[in-house]
Amino acid sequence: MAKVSILMGSDSDLEVMGKAAEMLEKFGIEYEMKIISAHRMPDIFVDYAKSAEERGIEVIIAGAGGAAHLPGMAAAIFQLPVIGVPIYSKTVGGVDALYSIVQMPSGIPVATVAINGAANAAILAAKMLSISDLELRKKLKEYKEELKNGVAAKDEKLGKIGYQEYIREKNQ
Amino acid sequence: MAKVSILMGSDSDLEVMGKAAEMLEKFGIEYEMKIISAHRMPDIFVDYAKSAEERGIEVIIAGAGGAAHLPGMAAAIFQLPVIGVPIYSKTVGGVDALYSIVQMPSGIPVATVAINGAANAAILAAKMLSISDLELRKKLKEYKEELKNGVAAKDEKLGKIGYQEYIREKNQ
Amino acid sequence: MAKVSILMGSDSDLEVMGKAAEMLEKFGIEYEMKIISAHRMPDIFVDYAKSAEERGIEVIIAGAGGAAHLPGMAAAIFQLPVIGVPIYSKTVGGVDALYSIVQMPSGIPVATVAINGAANAAILAAKMLSISDLELRKKLKEYKEELKNGVAAKDEKLGKIGYQEYIREKNQ
Amino acid sequence: MAKVSILMGSDSDLEVMGKAAEMLEKFGIEYEMKIISAHRMPDIFVDYAKSAEERGIEVIIAGAGGAAHLPGMAAAIFQLPVIGVPIYSKTVGGVDALYSIVQMPSGIPVATVAINGAANAAILAAKMLSISDLELRKKLKEYKEELKNGVAAKDEKLGKIGYQEYIREKNQ
Amino acid sequence: MAKVSILMGSDSDLEVMGKAAEMLEKFGIEYEMKIISAHRMPDIFVDYAKSAEERGIEVIIAGAGGAAHLPGMAAAIFQLPVIGVPIYSKTVGGVDALYSIVQMPSGIPVATVAINGAANAAILAAKMLSISDLELRKKLKEYKEELKNGVAAKDEKLGKIGYQEYIREKNQ
Amino acid sequence: MAKVSILMGSDSDLEVMGKAAEMLEKFGIEYEMKIISAHRMPDIFVDYAKSAEERGIEVIIAGAGGAAHLPGMAAAIFQLPVIGVPIYSKTVGGVDALYSIVQMPSGIPVATVAINGAANAAILAAKMLSISDLELRKKLKEYKEELKNGVAAKDEKLGKIGYQEYIREKNQ
Amino acid sequence: MAKVSILMGSDSDLEVMGKAAEMLEKFGIEYEMKIISAHRMPDIFVDYAKSAEERGIEVIIAGAGGAAHLPGMAAAIFQLPVIGVPIYSKTVGGVDALYSIVQMPSGIPVATVAINGAANAAILAAKMLSISDLELRKKLKEYKEELKNGVAAKDEKLGKIGYQEYIREKNQ
Amino acid sequence: MAKVSILMGSDSDLEVMGKAAEMLEKFGIEYEMKIISAHRMPDIFVDYAKSAEERGIEVIIAGAGGAAHLPGMAAAIFQLPVIGVPIYSKTVGGVDALYSIVQMPSGIPVATVAINGAANAAILAAKMLSISDLELRKKLKEYKEELKNGVAAKDEKLGKIGYQEYIREKNQ
Repeated sequence: MAKVSILMGSDSDLEVMGKAAEMLEKFGIEYEMKIISAHRMPDIFVDYAKSAEERGIEVIIAGAGGAAHLPGMAAAIFQLPVIGVPIYSKTVGGVDALYSIVQMPSGIPVATVAINGAANAAILAAKMLSISDLELRKKLKEYKEELKNGVAAKDEKLGKIGYQEYIREKNQ
Repeated sequence: MAKVSILMGSDSDLEVMGKAAEMLEKFGIEYEMKIISAHRMPDIFVDYAKSAEERGIEVIIAGAGGAAHLPGMAAAIFQLPVIGVPIYSKTVGGVDALYSIVQMPSGIPVATVAINGAANAAILAAKMLSISDLELRKKLKEYKEELKNGVAAKDEKLGKIGYQEYIREKNQ
Repeated sequence: MAKVSILMGSDSDLEVMGKAAEMLEKFGIEYEMKIISAHRMPDIFVDYAKSAEERGIEVIIAGAGGAAHLPGMAAAIFQLPVIGVPIYSKTVGGVDALYSIVQMPSGIPVATVAINGAANAAILAAKMLSISDLELRKKLKEYKEELKNGVAAKDEKLGKIGYQEYIREKNQ
Repeated sequence: MAKVSILMGSDSDLEVMGKAAEMLEKFGIEYEMKIISAHRMPDIFVDYAKSAEERGIEVIIAGAGGAAHLPGMAAAIFQLPVIGVPIYSKTVGGVDALYSIVQMPSGIPVATVAINGAANAAILAAKMLSISDLELRKKLKEYKEELKNGVAAKDEKLGKIGYQEYIREKNQ
Repeated sequence: MAKVSILMGSDSDLEVMGKAAEMLEKFGIEYEMKIISAHRMPDIFVDYAKSAEERGIEVIIAGAGGAAHLPGMAAAIFQLPVIGVPIYSKTVGGVDALYSIVQMPSGIPVATVAINGAANAAILAAKMLSISDLELRKKLKEYKEELKNGVAAKDEKLGKIGYQEYIREKNQ
Repeated sequence: MAKVSILMGSDSDLEVMGKAAEMLEKFGIEYEMKIISAHRMPDIFVDYAKSAEERGIEVIIAGAGGAAHLPGMAAAIFQLPVIGVPIYSKTVGGVDALYSIVQMPSGIPVATVAINGAANAAILAAKMLSISDLELRKKLKEYKEELKNGVAAKDEKLGKIGYQEYIREKNQ
Repeated sequence: MAKVSILMGSDSDLEVMGKAAEMLEKFGIEYEMKIISAHRMPDIFVDYAKSAEERGIEVIIAGAGGAAHLPGMAAAIFQLPVIGVPIYSKTVGGVDALYSIVQMPSGIPVATVAINGAANAAILAAKMLSISDLELRKKLKEYKEELKNGVAAKDEKLGKIGYQEYIREKNQ
Repeated sequence: MAKVSILMGSDSDLEVMGKAAEMLEKFGIEYEMKIISAHRMPDIFVDYAKSAEERGIEVIIAGAGGAAHLPGMAAAIFQLPVIGVPIYSKTVGGVDALYSIVQMPSGIPVATVAINGAANAAILAAKMLSISDLELRKKLKEYKEELKNGVAAKDEKLGKIGYQEYIREKNQ
């Protein structure tokens, strides 16, 4: 049964939001993923958000660009945490979405991550779930170790081959 | 019967939104005014927005600050025009509300006016109604004349007393 | 007889403003479209704006970039609603045009839509006209239904083929 | 035993961060509150962040202004969720802190709330804890009801006394 | 006969624009000063701008806030140089006016000065006039000397009494 | 003898600043053009700026990007008008250069034009020179006529072939 | 003999820049302090900057607001490090000065600190001098200890009296 | 033995930070270069920053993008100067990194250079080291001469072949 719901208002956000799905899969967290619009189908959206809790959803991750209302409206209805992912767009670089998601009024928080930060949204969801799931906590610790080792490996490579050769290899 | 609905999410917006009411009164346009929150009472809000058209509302004016979702969510439900008023706040000066209101996705426009521009929202509503109301159109023309005469009177005064005296009088 | 006038100051805005024309055609609303500049041909512009009402124009849609004065100057002259479309440009991403259009002084509102939001400008014009045109109101409802069905179809497809396959198909 | 830790780098943030404490008290959530600086006492900070989990802390709320590194550095060390509160300051209005907190690199998310949104940070912490605490979930539902009733009461008052009288009373 | 025209759209700009008048007086340049609005009285404005050249005006200084169209529209009509002064306002700090004035399209430049920089606008007008007025050029050189001496006197005072005493005196 | 000097700090600005040269040629105004840096060769720069007036330069046009000091430093030394052209750059879109050029302190104005607005800088220089050069004034009037006719021709074409065909031709 | 020079273009910056002097005094570093303007007295400024090195100045701290050219021009002339302090101003909050100081072209760096960060400029100067001055390095370590103890004392107080009492005392 | 340490949090910053290495090589300054993350390997990072001084590092140059904590955290631990390089990124153009690096709290300065200004960071490091290294000071003077000659050569070429030919050659 899905514990996390990944929502987006348009399939143009799918490349970005797919990173959230990948990360949840990595942690073995079941999720559902939907294209659903608070603006274009408010009734369906409201019904979805209302029933999410009883269907077992514990965290909603919602990505949106522009006047990004999806995360905030989800948080207005869904009782449990909502994580918002502001999506980049050319005109104002995603700052519009960032403001629309993060500047929520008192009473209705959205846990906002970086512009296009869908992978981080999934990690944050995992961290929330890990409060009561020690198995998942262990996986998160392993993931952190992975991150550290990834950087350390790059540093070692840089030490060995030097920056000029490193850049050359990267650009091949 | 009210033709225009003035909405705001919090009574902290009342000083600003009161200017919309004053302007509608000036044009003799009936209105209703409500404190209603898309975030804090989504069900009541949705019901209100759905029933507005059949109760005779022809234009909604919605003011909101921060992650200002009220105008956009009204436009998602209400079939007729929605005018959004971004409300100033200290932190980012109302640019957050401006972006949240104006950057709506394709299909769901909000007619956005200046930050704190509630009086202009009412004039815009009157302009919309005047498409089919010639009496109101005449009032708008008279109002325009008033505006012109107001500036002309100030210019005349400036010509008479000079800028130093004018400033002195203003600051008294 | 044209009810809506689509204006732009330069043919560099034509790709964007063409979306307004397409949308008006979709709703069966007659329009005229002009390249006209408040800066480069102020007399012609003023004459046009002054005569628009008597020629039957009920809404003006004006697109402009940079120091975008066209919508505001149209609103200073034309009695009925003016909708402004800020046009994106590389240097400050259209925020210059957005501010120039939306921050109008008291008395002279411009109904501002999103940066490059010409399609939404046309929908907003249709909404204004639909206050007194029930036939058009019906078309707007059908359009909303279309929007909803479009999202629902994408969601269904996502449910069927999954995000990885969906992205693959999109990028083909 | 404290489940939530409220951190700030300076006592100048105490008025804002006190709102988080008040809200946690309202929900009956035990917390500890510390003035601790990642910049001025990195060793003490690192020790604190490292030992937090084993001392039973399940969520850290960290407020910071300017080049706000406290939440991000907490998230780099503490395994469980970190909520960041950007603090307003005069020069750039808190946008510096917002960017420093929200734009975290992949792997190390901070759940960011609005500028000065400490009360919302506490509500978000409560929502996270309520994933596995049904008693707390009930309290959050009651709180939501309170919010709704608060707005409804204001709306009723507005309906009764009108906006002019309402504003007069507010300003007394 | 006035050579410079100082325009503003509203008497709320008079304190700022008065600084332009003071500076022109200092240089002995005749000027006229008017409250005139391109938005609220477009016909009067157009007539004024058209006739300015033949009445002997050689430079227009126009101050405006918000969607500041006055300088740009003056430049669209008046053949000789137009200097624009963006006026500060609380919401976006005058950046709206700055963009509206400086980002003019090709063909119609406005010589833009700093936000609230009306004194500089007058000096710039004097510099323009001094191209063909050697007497005025001399005055500008004397003014520059004054500026230099003003700073030098302050520096001398600082050297004598030290920064602490200097600050104490300033704050008395 | 050159009356206008076109300066830039780096040859990376040459494409933009070349537009100023083209425009001056169009008006038959003699100019000189130099790559000169206030930062990299302050002595040479100061000498140049000091001697410009006696060599007959009446207006300096200076283009600069980033921390654009060239126009302001020219204005600090050269007695006659300095026009500043902020140059676009990728990182903050030219807003850094705009602020560095336009926000000059009292006493030392720079006549700022749009980001990358070098052609407008030349037109502005021509307008300044035309205060005392009636022949040039006539050329500026003809240029304005050209601008108007250019827009009118495009509008006529649009009227004839429609927007779809117009866009098709443009994109060929 | 002064090793550090504190410069500002106007005595309006003296309150801010005085903090740099206080901090240098605390570290026992000799300094000189001058009001000197690159714009209003370019010759005096250039002479000063040229002779600074031979008079024993090892670091220049320059504060400036608006189109803040003082630090950059100092760096163009003075061979040793220049630290720039952007000064806050109401209109764009000091972002203009920040950009003008930090966005220097390749070859001419300015070590930029926070808006109004004059105390930090002095600490940075001390850090630079401490590269070859072990006595000063010791003082910087002691200062760091002080900073740590200051925060720790506040934290202890908070632990003792609680946030409500702490706020009450602060506001007395 | 390395005197300068060049740090970055990710190998995606290597192209930019390589410019710092090149410049240090040009001045014959020994350096070490590391990919090291304050977020992903806080322990390793803290150990590195703590031991840098005793290993002979005199200046740290740290580049970072987004919520760029690396320079600030280095400055919190390392006693000697830290230079921060904000790295450009698409979403907000590097302004996030600029704010995160420059807006440091009192006591912990970071010497910030331009967005992507890694070459300037190296020059600034050289300037710092040259306070006590007269040989290096001489090299910096020669470099300055080079810069000047580079611009002068370009100016000479422009004078010879004209802007049109110059642009043509550049674009080949």
